[in-house]
Amino acid sequence: MILTFDREKTIIRTLLQKLGASGEEANATAEVLAEGDLRGFASHGLLRLPYILRALKRGTIAVKAEVKVVRETPATGLINGGHGLGHYVVTRAMRLAIEKAKQQGVAAVGVYNSNHFGIAGYYAELAMREGLIGIVTTTTDALVHPWGGVEPLLGTNALAIGLPTEPPVLLDMAMSVAARGKLVKAMKEGKPIPENWAIDSGGKPTTDPAKGLEGALSPFGGPKGYALAFVLELLAGPLVHAAAGKEVKGTLEPVEGFCTKGDFMIAIDPKAFVAQEEFRARAREFIEQVKSSQKVPGVGEIMVPGEPEQKTRERRLREGIPISDEVWIELEQIAKELGVDLKSM
Amino acid sequence: MILTFDREKTIIRTLLQKLGASGEEANATAEVLAEGDLRGFASHGLLRLPYILRALKRGTIAVKAEVKVVRETPATGLINGGHGLGHYVVTRAMRLAIEKAKQQGVAAVGVYNSNHFGIAGYYAELAMREGLIGIVTTTTDALVHPWGGVEPLLGTNALAIGLPTEPPVLLDMAMSVAARGKLVKAMKEGKPIPENWAIDSGGKPTTDPAKGLEGALSPFGGPKGYALAFVLELLAGPLVHAAAGKEVKGTLEPVEGFCTKGDFMIAIDPKAFVAQEEFRARAREFIEQVKSSQKVPGVGEIMVPGEPEQKTRERRLREGIPISDEVWIELEQIAKELGVDLKSM
Repeated sequence: MILTFDREKTIIRTLLQKLGASGEEANATAEVLAEGDLRGFASHGLLRLPYILRALKRGTIAVKAEVKVVRETPATGLINGGHGLGHYVVTRAMRLAIEKAKQQGVAAVGVYNSNHFGIAGYYAELAMREGLIGIVTTTTDALVHPWGGVEPLLGTNALAIGLPTEPPVLLDMAMSVAARGKLVKAMKEGKPIPENWAIDSGGKPTTDPAKGLEGALSPFGGPKGYALAFVLELLAGPLVHAAAGKEVKGTLEPVEGFCTKGDFMIAIDPKAFVAQEEFRARAREFIEQVKSSQKVPGVGEIMVPGEPEQKTRERRLREGIPISDEVWIELEQIAKELGVDLKSM
Repeated sequence: MILTFDREKTIIRTLLQKLGASGEEANATAEVLAEGDLRGFASHGLLRLPYILRALKRGTIAVKAEVKVVRETPATGLINGGHGLGHYVVTRAMRLAIEKAKQQGVAAVGVYNSNHFGIAGYYAELAMREGLIGIVTTTTDALVHPWGGVEPLLGTNALAIGLPTEPPVLLDMAMSVAARGKLVKAMKEGKPIPENWAIDSGGKPTTDPAKGLEGALSPFGGPKGYALAFVLELLAGPLVHAAAGKEVKGTLEPVEGFCTKGDFMIAIDPKAFVAQEEFRARAREFIEQVKSSQKVPGVGEIMVPGEPEQKTRERRLREGIPISDEVWIELEQIAKELGVDLKSM
């Protein structure tokens, strides 16, 4: 199935509102999921809607959630997300960070009692659109092994860092070499995985995706990626009144009780440090150095962080977003149960 | 030569003061360099003193530098380091960030017109000692190639993130797989380097350290490490009135004119988000999960970030710091020229 950006958003909004989500909640979630698909992060797009709908039915994600700032200084905030849709809660959290950073030059906001929020880069971009730098991190269920360890104890802990340069620069990455979804896909297709993606439950690197899923995902970059995943686990966990390690639950599938993950974000106003023109001019000069530099034989173009996703986004805005049959069939079934005909949308 | 921590500091202080550094400047530099050696970061310890002394003689590092806050909000500051010793300038910058974070919950400080500052982790620790989280990054001369590129265009851009947990957690790493100093050492010893450390000037991975030094260092973790190095280059460069890419000069050897690098740091007060006891208890629980988890066969212990360096530090405080003959002979020569007898210290 090929969906336009708008049609995907309409479908998501409609199904969420059928289950009681407010217009604002449904809009925010539709926006982030569809942006995920536009950029090619299929695992953070429509694929996650059935999970979200299941959680809404079970009540482990709350609708019309009460999002409360429970602790605050002029430059910081801690938000109790009321177990609401993560996309909505964190959109609000980032807006608070942006507002404070515009006043103070920098602001940091933490979130707990929330849910999976889609692509981290989306929230960094909220800051970028206002001329600010956005830094966003989050935890997930434990999937990644410590360096030297066998058990999955760290989340994939996405990190996004976006800067309002021209062109924009947006790092958006997980701490694992590969997303769990890629192992699931390889398993379904009966294909092997590269040796550095995962270890089996005995701690050996494996090319068998099923064994990798029983074992643990490997951190990117060896001990350095492990160390980065570790500190992000503490920033988006214990720092923000949220769980860490094995105690993080509910980001993959609904669990008994609520999701225990946390989020942490920082917004920075470059104007607190330098004139906007200077910042942009120096950044552009650096970007041009990199873009125009000598390439490894066989490489067509050197990309800046976020550029590959931006190219995919532009193409999919024109050509539409491919949605796998499996996801589409599951959605049609759910829609039918809710009395919604996807074909009519 | 084996030096005690105190003797190393005395030597550094004395030589710096002989060349006109103030007591505060000499103390700060001695502290950071000796801490680098204690932890096993030889490339950021006494090894760098001859370079610093050469720069002081040439006047490209200024003594009794005027360190000025040129732009300020209650939560941010931009510091003109007056071309002073980086260790002194950034110690002051981090103290400003700490002071502001204690008031506001979070603070960000940028630095330009400064110099190489030794180990980034030292400044994160200044924050940790005050119960704060410290995040520190910096740029260096361009040594690392972009992903898909051949030319060195990014710095090794150290990143330190430290949290005041029990035990403390301190990530302190460069964006290259290996430090440039390790290639220099391998070349001198006639040894090959692992294939993922560097590329030659044609863009091919090389095991010949000389060819790697002519080419470029590789970012750790492939495209992800490249993306991280890229955003840090912008944060510790254009954001703070400093250079980026090929324009960063003077962090390896004195150059014509002053060093053009920049630094950027953030301090966060956990108490702005959660009670200290809760933060520490949850963090400790996570650390214990990791420490007590199943190990890969053959691994003796799973370390948390900063733990290997902490163990080296404790051992060297007891047993002394090994200094290579080469560094010691060079220092003795410089000391003699300055009328200082190292043996008497």
